[in-house]
This record gives sequence, structure tokens and C-alpha cells, in this order.
Amino acid sequence: MRELINYRPIARVVSVLLVIIGVLMWTGVPFSAYYDEPTQPLLYAGVTTLVAAGLLWLISHRKKDGRTASVAMLSIHKREGYLIVALSWVAMTVFGMLPYLYSGMLPSVPDALFETVSGLTTTGASTLTDIEIQPRGLLYWRSLTQWIGGMGIIVLTVAILPLLGIGGIELFAAEAPGPTSDKLHPRISETAKRLWFIYVGLTVLEGFLLYFAGLSPYEAINHALTTMATGGFSTRNASAAAFSPTIQYIIILFMFLAGVNYTLLYLGIKRRWSEVWRSSELKAYVGLIVVLTAIFTARVSYHTEDTLEQCFRDSMFQIVSLITTTGFVSADYTSWANSLTMVCFVLLFLGACAGSTSGGIKLIRHLVFFKNSYLEFKRLIHPQAIVPLRLNGQIVPGRIITHIFNFLLLYLMIFVLGSVVLSILGLDFITAVGAMATSLGNVGPGIGGVGPTDNFAWLSPEIKLFLSFVMIVGRLEIFTVLILFTPYFWRLN
Amino acid sequence: MRELINYRPIARVVSVLLVIIGVLMWTGVPFSAYYDEPTQPLLYAGVTTLVAAGLLWLISHRKKDGRTASVAMLSIHKREGYLIVALSWVAMTVFGMLPYLYSGMLPSVPDALFETVSGLTTTGASTLTDIEIQPRGLLYWRSLTQWIGGMGIIVLTVAILPLLGIGGIELFAAEAPGPTSDKLHPRISETAKRLWFIYVGLTVLEGFLLYFAGLSPYEAINHALTTMATGGFSTRNASAAAFSPTIQYIIILFMFLAGVNYTLLYLGIKRRWSEVWRSSELKAYVGLIVVLTAIFTARVSYHTEDTLEQCFRDSMFQIVSLITTTGFVSADYTSWANSLTMVCFVLLFLGACAGSTSGGIKLIRHLVFFKNSYLEFKRLIHPQAIVPLRLNGQIVPGRIITHIFNFLLLYLMIFVLGSVVLSILGLDFITAVGAMATSLGNVGPGIGGVGPTDNFAWLSPEIKLFLSFVMIVGRLEIFTVLILFTPYFWRLN
Ligand SMILES: [K+]
Ligand SMILES: [K+]
Repeated sequence: MRELINYRPIARVVSVLLVIIGVLMWTGVPFSAYYDEPTQPLLYAGVTTLVAAGLLWLISHRKKDGRTASVAMLSIHKREGYLIVALSWVAMTVFGMLPYLYSGMLPSVPDALFETVSGLTTTGASTLTDIEIQPRGLLYWRSLTQWIGGMGIIVLTVAILPLLGIGGIELFAAEAPGPTSDKLHPRISETAKRLWFIYVGLTVLEGFLLYFAGLSPYEAINHALTTMATGGFSTRNASAAAFSPTIQYIIILFMFLAGVNYTLLYLGIKRRWSEVWRSSELKAYVGLIVVLTAIFTARVSYHTEDTLEQCFRDSMFQIVSLITTTGFVSADYTSWANSLTMVCFVLLFLGACAGSTSGGIKLIRHLVFFKNSYLEFKRLIHPQAIVPLRLNGQIVPGRIITHIFNFLLLYLMIFVLGSVVLSILGLDFITAVGAMATSLGNVGPGIGGVGPTDNFAWLSPEIKLFLSFVMIVGRLEIFTVLILFTPYFWRLN
Repeated sequence: MRELINYRPIARVVSVLLVIIGVLMWTGVPFSAYYDEPTQPLLYAGVTTLVAAGLLWLISHRKKDGRTASVAMLSIHKREGYLIVALSWVAMTVFGMLPYLYSGMLPSVPDALFETVSGLTTTGASTLTDIEIQPRGLLYWRSLTQWIGGMGIIVLTVAILPLLGIGGIELFAAEAPGPTSDKLHPRISETAKRLWFIYVGLTVLEGFLLYFAGLSPYEAINHALTTMATGGFSTRNASAAAFSPTIQYIIILFMFLAGVNYTLLYLGIKRRWSEVWRSSELKAYVGLIVVLTAIFTARVSYHTEDTLEQCFRDSMFQIVSLITTTGFVSADYTSWANSLTMVCFVLLFLGACAGSTSGGIKLIRHLVFFKNSYLEFKRLIHPQAIVPLRLNGQIVPGRIITHIFNFLLLYLMIFVLGSVVLSILGLDFITAVGAMATSLGNVGPGIGGVGPTDNFAWLSPEIKLFLSFVMIVGRLEIFTVLILFTPYFWRLN
């Protein structure tokens, strides 16, 4: 009889992750050295992380029942899958905040934890009040946490979550096998390799473009890392408002690409355009950006004295930034008009395509809702008829529709409950809903006291810890985290 | 071959409704006479309405295909059912606002229309800035519109909507047959008679209790009419805050009863208590009120200098008033604390039991959501197992779960879109979401500029017309109204 949960593969995966984290910390050391900053924080944080990884490896490698564990031999079932996902994020957070603590850049644990979770979840909300006076090596690490988190989330949503049956995403992960078996499929590593290639390639490409457009290599690298992760951490206090129009347009383009399903990006690279354009989600994504940009441009140019080009650029930048949940800011969208503030708030709930690094609900789920709502009227008129929902030409089973609807409702329910918690912790109405929406959707800026020109530094430690948990819940598509708190998870039947 | 829509039964039903409306207008004439006010407005409005009813009757009674129509012979199908519901509300609104217009109490059409729709939908939001200086006879008519609307809604939700398959309410309407046939069932009239008896009985009982507790007969009648409708129109500017504790407790009791499913009230009258207590929705309803009252009492007593009894009474009154969507006010809930304002805002989305006069989403739908969410985790862990959702011991079919979820999401979507529209029409964030939530949920008071101590008089005519439409959409459970705007409705296949 097998145990309920086999902890050895979990320890193994986490230990491998920590090795990656530790080594990546060291990639910041050259920046620290170049800018004449202390190199110890990143160096020692890397050492600590690698030692911990080694210890975990030893534990996971112990002989058991006379067998040594090898990755191929390890049987990873659903329960282990959930725990790997959750514990990976916990472990990355615990060790990821060491540079902030060691350096004294963020000496308090709630601040350092918030900044790290905000990085790894690609949220981009910050507790730093003045970014430009911070050590460059540490800011690079801060950007890198987002890039690591972005990579993690692609592997998670394209390769792992569909196997766990989370969020109905088997629908849009054409590359991944359906959740027919309890065992995770070995094809994960093959898919992951392909995604890795696209992710790294686009990051490098954007970095070069930003550099040629005038950014320093350091800033080009930082912003390339946080754009492709739809993270939104910047090395400037004014975020992208500090940059030239050309740079802003480059960032818009790569935010857009970062919001596309990686399966489609892969098909695009292979020039299989007809398959790319079959995607209803991509059409919705492009259409939404076009329509909203037109409306915003008209409204903003009516409101300000700026040139039409600037109105267009500011509108498109903010819309793409919010829909992709990147959270870069090139203009204060809460200063435009009541109605545009309201629309921007609603955009916090959209998210771009599933299988991208973007957070939030994702457009595919909204599509399923809109299509089914329309069909529901047909079902009312013709109660005897069978009216199936089709997406990209395929019938979506009722069970998956229910699951997606349940996700949508749970998402909104958590938003509401979290807003109540934040108001109990002292926030006013607008700041509470703004902070909750932007944290759960992994966007970054919100409305009210956490608007695009504010930061999260002024919030109480309790609020920072609470929002850190919320960011992880949002990033891991809710079910992955909450399932650990149900009795079903901890008993065999 | 039959026509797509048979308009004769629709005209017939509307004409009967208008006769009732016209005659009921005249019941306000004695009040006008008693208080030395002009009697013409109500008198002439009644005449106009009855003349219109007569004309409609003649049209519906015309011979066609050599047959005269008799109600028994008329074949009412789904399409006619939807149109009857929608057009009834339109017709009642058009004629219901005549007294306001004829008297000059609300001389502008948007104001008169808003007040009438707010009455008939049992919302209770008002455009009157000073209620106490208004003619008594007209205020009686204003209260009566709510009572008429409340009666209409019970017949609708218990007897008609289940036949149309709207909102998954066949679930909780134990008395109504399922939507198996396209033809409306003749048992409607029998069920309606029973509901009518309970509704009238409780109204009379409350009226007497309020009178014995010290209200004038006039005020006792008015508040009994608007309590049982969960309407919330008052004859006092201060609403229920103007009354003694005893009267407030009586109103709490009857608001509570008005929020109970009428099928359960019927079983209660028959003393079939075991069947009453089997209802999960009733348990949730009672439990929610008890828990929230305890929390609010503690928080309010911490915040104010009031006696514990007053804190308890104020808390319970506001909670029962909001959950049942009555909207009477005995204390300003937005003045207590950020967190309680937020919770009160959330309460605008609850609604009491289905099959009562309360508006909003209704607890049964929330129950289905909560139960299914929990089961969804079980389904994730055991993907091969069939995990059905049970309510009151019965399995809820997947199709109905999907329909209920779709209702919930559509409700929230309309709330969001409506808030955007209101912000475009000039309202600030909090007032927009407050006005939208309270109108869609047929509650009455909101937050922000339409809080419990404010009214809707200051809003622009466009906003008043828009909110009138929203109140009707909310009251008729969304699908009933929106289906008229789909192509499916207007073509045979
Ligand atoms: K972000
Ligand atoms: K009401």
C-alpha cells in the first residue's frame, strides 16, 4: 500500500529549484562589483540557498525500502504535484528574500517578504519608496525574481496545471495531455524546454532592442527581465514614464507578446499562422486592446492638452500594461476621468491569454462565460435542444464549463472577502478594493491609496503579509493553494 | 402552423393587471379626502388606467380565425410568458406614474418614472427630498406600488419563472412543476391564490401590530405594505429611525418573514415544521443574520457610546433590512466603520430566500456556489469519481448548476458594466458601485452619494432612466428581460 503523500520527490524538486535560485543570485554579484556596491549580500544569500538545497537533496536521496530514488523512478501523483507547486513558491520566497535582509535594503521581514513574493508572483507591487537610490545589484536580483517567477508560471500553467485539472486550462493547453491519468506525464520536460527557449529568446531580443533605443545595458536587462515576466518592477521611480516614446513602444510590443499563449508563440515562430489565428482568445485579446485604445485615446485627448500621439501612446501603454497584468506605468490612469479609472479597475480582472506569464482571470475564461451566457438564452427558448458550447471549433464539456465558472466565482469571492479583510485592517473602501484586485490579479498598481503613482510601503505589516498570501493564491490559480486547506487533500478517500 | 408569438393572451393579461392597478389607485382617494388633499390625481389616474385596460381588452377579445379567445382556451407558450412578464412591468410603470404626474408631486417624467419603477420593483430608492410634506394620498399610492410589485414578484418567482426555467429556481419552488413542457401549467392560479392569502394575511397582521405599538393607522398601513414587499418606502424622512424600539422590532420581525420562501411560510402555517427546517436556505438565512448581528453589535458598541440594546437593535435592523433587500434605515451604516461599510456593501448582493419578495441574488444561489466550490476540490483529487451536488437531500443536475453559476456571473457582469456606465454618466467610483448594487439588488440605500441618509433626487435624468431599467432587470431575474434582446427570441428555430 502506498503512502498518502510521497515527500521525497517534493524535496527533490524543491532542492533543484533552490540550486537554480542560489546560482542565479550569484549572477547579480558582477553588477554589485561593477557599481562598487557590497557583493556580500548576494554572495552569502547564494551560499545559504545552496547549502539548504544540498541538505534537502541529501534528505530526498536517502535510501528507503532499499531503493534509492531517481527522478525517473519517482512516482509523482496529484497530491505531490500540488505540494510541489505550493512548496516551491514558499521555498523560493524564503530564500529569495535573503539578499534584501542581508543587505539591509529591506530590513523588516514583512517588507522583504512582500517584495520577494511580489517579484516571484510577477505582481510588481513594491514597498520601496525611492527605487533609484537602491544598490543596483540588488535591484537586478529584484527584477530577476520576476523573471524566475514568470518562467515558473509558464511551466506551471502549460505543463503542470492541466495535468492537475485546475481551472479548466486543459482546454487551451493544446500541447498538454488531458487529465486522464493520475500520474504526471513525462512529456513535461520536453514542453518546458520549448517554452524556455521562447522565453529566453524574447527576453534577449527585448534587451537588445531597449539597449539600441537608448537604455543603459543595466536598465535594458532589468526591463527586459520584468517585461517578459509581465512583472512590472522598474529601476526608475517614475516607471516607464521616465523613458522615451521609442522605448515605451518597444515595451508595449513585448508586454503584448508576453501576454500571448506560449503555444501560439511557438506556432508563430514555426510560421503556422493559420493555427495561430484560429484562437478565439487571441482574437479577443487583440480586439480588446484595439477597441479600448481607441476609446481611451479619444477620451484622454478630450481631457488633456497633450498631442494625439502622446494620448494614443499613454492609452495603449496603460491598457496593454493592465490587461497583460504587467503593471508598468507611463501615465497616471486615475487622473484622467472617473469613467476611465473605473474601466482601468475592471481591467485588473481581465488578464491576457492563458498559458502566458500574465496573471488575473485570463481572457479564455471570460470568453467561455460570454459564449455560454448567450447560449443559455437559446437553451431557455428551446429547453429540449442540446446546445453545446464550442471554442476554437471544439465542444467544451459541461463539467469544464462548471469548473471554469466556479473558478470565476471563487476568484470574485476571494476578491470580496479579501477586500473585507483589508477594510478590517484599516483601509478605506477604494484602497481596499484596489489593493485586493491588483494583488489577486498580480498586476501591481491599483486605485486609491495604491494607485499608479503610489507604492505599498505605507501599509501595515499585517496587510503586507496578507497581500503576500493573496498574490500567491492568485498566481497559483486559487485551487492549487486552497486545495491544501481541504480535508480531501489529507485523507485517502 | 402557429405564429411565433400570440399577442392576444398578452394583451388580455396586461388588461386584467391594469384593471387591478386602476381600482387600487382609487383606494387612495379616501386618504386624500380625509387629509383634505385634492382627490383628482388618483381619481383621474384610475380612470385613465381603466380606459386603457378596456381598450386592451377589446383588442384581445376580437374574434380571430372565427374563434373568440377565452383565458382557458388561450395557449400560452414560453415566448408569451416572457413577454407577459416584461410588458406587465412596463404597463404598470406607465400607468403607475400617472398620479405623480397629474398631481405635480413629481412633475418630470424621469423622476415620476424612477419613483414608480422603484416602487413596483420593491427597490425603495426615492427621488423625493422631503417626504413628510407630500400629500398623504399619493404617499399611500407610493407604498401601494411596492405592495403590488411584491405580490407580482411572488407569483412570478414561485409560479411563473420555474416554468420558464429561469435562474434554476425550479430547485426551490417545490410547489411548481418542472419545466418539462413548453406550455404554462394551469396550477398557477391555485398556487397564486395560496400565496395571496399569506401575503395579505401577514400585511394585515403587521398593520395591526404597528398600530397597537403606537403608529397612526395611516402610517401603520403604509409601513405594513412596504415591509411585506421588502420595498422600504417610508412616510418619514428619517425612515424607521423615526420610530420607537418596539416598532423597530416589529418591523425587523416582518422583514425577516418577508424574506422567507413563501412555500416554507405555507408549510409553517400548516405546522409542518420538520419540512420547514429541512431547508438549507432557511438555515443559511437564520445563521447569517445571527452571526452578522453578533459581529456588528460588538463592533458598533466598541465604536459608539450607545447602550448595548441599541447597538444590537441598530445592527440587527440594518442587517435584516439589507439581506432581505427591504432597505428601511434605522441608523447610518456608513458612519460606523470602514469595515462595516464594506460588509454592508457586500450584503447588497445577498438577497434572502428565493420565492420571497426579496431582491438580489438570493441565498440559494450562493449556497449552490459554496457547496459546489467545496465539491470541486474533491473532484480535483478524485477525477474519476462522480461527485454530485445535493441540496435538501436532492441531487442538483449539472445543467442547473451551470445555469445558476451563469446567473451569478451575469449578475456581477451587469453590476460591473452598469457601474462603468454610471461613471461615464459622471458618478464617482463609490457612488457608482453603490447606486448600481442597490438598484440591481432592489435594496434601496447604497453607499457613497446614495447612502442610507441620502436620496436619488440629485442624480441626472439619464442616470434615473438608466437605474430604472436596471431595477427592472434585477427584479425580473435578468434572463427574463435580456432574453427579449436576443435573436433566439424572435425567430422560430
Ligand atoms: K505585474
Ligand atoms: K427594497
